[in-house]
Amino acid sequence: MELGQIGEFGAIGLFQELIAAHGKQAALQPEIGIGDDAAVWRPTTGRAAIETTDLLIEEVHFSLRHMSWYDVGWKSMAVNVSDVAAMGGQPGAAFVSAGLSPQMPLEDARELFRGVAECAAEYGVAILGGDTVAAPQAAVINVALYGETLDESGAVLRRDAARPGDAVGVSGPLGESAAYLRLQDDAFRAAHVHPLPRVELGQQLLRAGIRCGMDVSDGLLADLAKLCSASGAAAQVQAVQVPQAPALARLLPHDALELALTGGEDYQLLACGPEDMLRQAGLAVVGSITEGSGVTVLDANGQELSFKTPGYDAFSGGP
Amino acid sequence: MELGQIGEFGAIGLFQELIAAHGKQAALQPEIGIGDDAAVWRPTTGRAAIETTDLLIEEVHFSLRHMSWYDVGWKSMAVNVSDVAAMGGQPGAAFVSAGLSPQMPLEDARELFRGVAECAAEYGVAILGGDTVAAPQAAVINVALYGETLDESGAVLRRDAARPGDAVGVSGPLGESAAYLRLQDDAFRAAHVHPLPRVELGQQLLRAGIRCGMDVSDGLLADLAKLCSASGAAAQVQAVQVPQAPALARLLPHDALELALTGGEDYQLLACGPEDMLRQAGLAVVGSITEGSGVTVLDANGQELSFKTPGYDAFSGGP
Repeated sequence: MELGQIGEFGAIGLFQELIAAHGKQAALQPEIGIGDDAAVWRPTTGRAAIETTDLLIEEVHFSLRHMSWYDVGWKSMAVNVSDVAAMGGQPGAAFVSAGLSPQMPLEDARELFRGVAECAAEYGVAILGGDTVAAPQAAVINVALYGETLDESGAVLRRDAARPGDAVGVSGPLGESAAYLRLQDDAFRAAHVHPLPRVELGQQLLRAGIRCGMDVSDGLLADLAKLCSASGAAAQVQAVQVPQAPALARLLPHDALELALTGGEDYQLLACGPEDMLRQAGLAVVGSITEGSGVTVLDANGQELSFKTPGYDAFSGGP
Repeated sequence: MELGQIGEFGAIGLFQELIAAHGKQAALQPEIGIGDDAAVWRPTTGRAAIETTDLLIEEVHFSLRHMSWYDVGWKSMAVNVSDVAAMGGQPGAAFVSAGLSPQMPLEDARELFRGVAECAAEYGVAILGGDTVAAPQAAVINVALYGETLDESGAVLRRDAARPGDAVGVSGPLGESAAYLRLQDDAFRAAHVHPLPRVELGQQLLRAGIRCGMDVSDGLLADLAKLCSASGAAAQVQAVQVPQAPALARLLPHDALELALTGGEDYQLLACGPEDMLRQAGLAVVGSITEGSGVTVLDANGQELSFKTPGYDAFSGGP
């Protein structure tokens, strides 16, 4: 059975079944959900709204050679959840658009939607709308995610709030997702196909008083460069302090540091602020913010290291 | 110059320029706009949130044989604005994802983004985020649009609120957009490429006390069938009452009625309620809601007419 045989409304029905099966944990209960021209819900009084969107295209952002349809669904939701986590917010409602081949086996579509719905449920996100259409040439998934700030102050983790003297912290091992693309070893698979956005940690950092942060999606050096540029500051990174997963040092000893510094899609958090606050929140302190611009990496002897850090450019290809 | 040569950040910069040039009319001023992991803004206290999303794929939902890139941009925003209009809401903030070929001429990308930005400005929508990525095979545009209800009651136009005895009204001539696809005559072009969503009218209907409505995107009979199904009711349509544009009767006399009843993408509003209220709001009354299910079309003699009304199914192709 193919998707084209059940039609648009069949596909929507299929998705709704999976949402119903997995969607019970969502805090946000809409006044009007899927099925009308738009969804309607009550924002929490006094809180600020947070919204992000991400578009994933087959063979550009994901490949079925490396991931299952379930993984694609999970990840398309997770990357958006990570953006809300990066603001220290609470994810609330998702709008999921899928462009799929009419020849797609129904079971594949079911797996894709199951991945989306399970990730949403895991993070308490209500799926309130979407669009399911034919995309004959390459599958396309877009998620728009609405969330809210933790409280009425509207405080969030921003990219432009780093100041000279701040320490730079990261929330976990980096480079595993990129290592999976290079090696396809099962030790790295989960990091690449089933990322676990750091929603609670983002909120914890905010409660602790941290005001500067983002998620590491394009690689530590590329993302830190963006943070520095937004903040009008520079950063110095101590290479030996950057956390590497044990499997990375074991399986790719020569490339581990480069992957940890430049590999994308690990969805850990990067935050700047007082060193003790970052450590207390469990972050590894990997460097500091200074006056100036750009990011410098130093080895254990204080010598500057050089890496090719194009980051990820959507138009020149990448991870 | 091609899009791939300016890269993802060049493309985002290009889009931001156009937003800045056209975005001054937006009521919603964000606390954080484009450039961080997510946008942040304050919802209007007490109002309910409304959100919708639409995914448009090249050669499925639009073709450059019929439309310019500017038109594609305008329409991708307009179809979402129309969904908020169909709820009687006020559009507020948009999140625009574009998947484009790296070989796309820069001037085409500029025209696409200009169309998006101008439609947003026309309807007071702030563009607060998005994602610009490579889509080598077919261009892809997704817009997610956040809006708000008119007041704190949270009242909206719903699909499921039609009751037997209600009159059925439509807000303007139907069939022109479909006529353009059939005939490519300039008389129909604007209806197809530059739809003008009925935002003010939706709000006016709501203020007048109407509670049931939707936009006509898939064709009057198909959309009325959805409204009836959601409301658990039936509808009877008087064919001679359905408004047709003069050019439709002149250029396609034999197909005018069929196009008006089954042609999609006119983005007029369809509403149900007391006949005098609908007429006062300027709607043409085309039929009535009855007990039962399904939609019946009658000619001037009360004879039932039959039309093929598959509506638009995203997976079986269509307009």
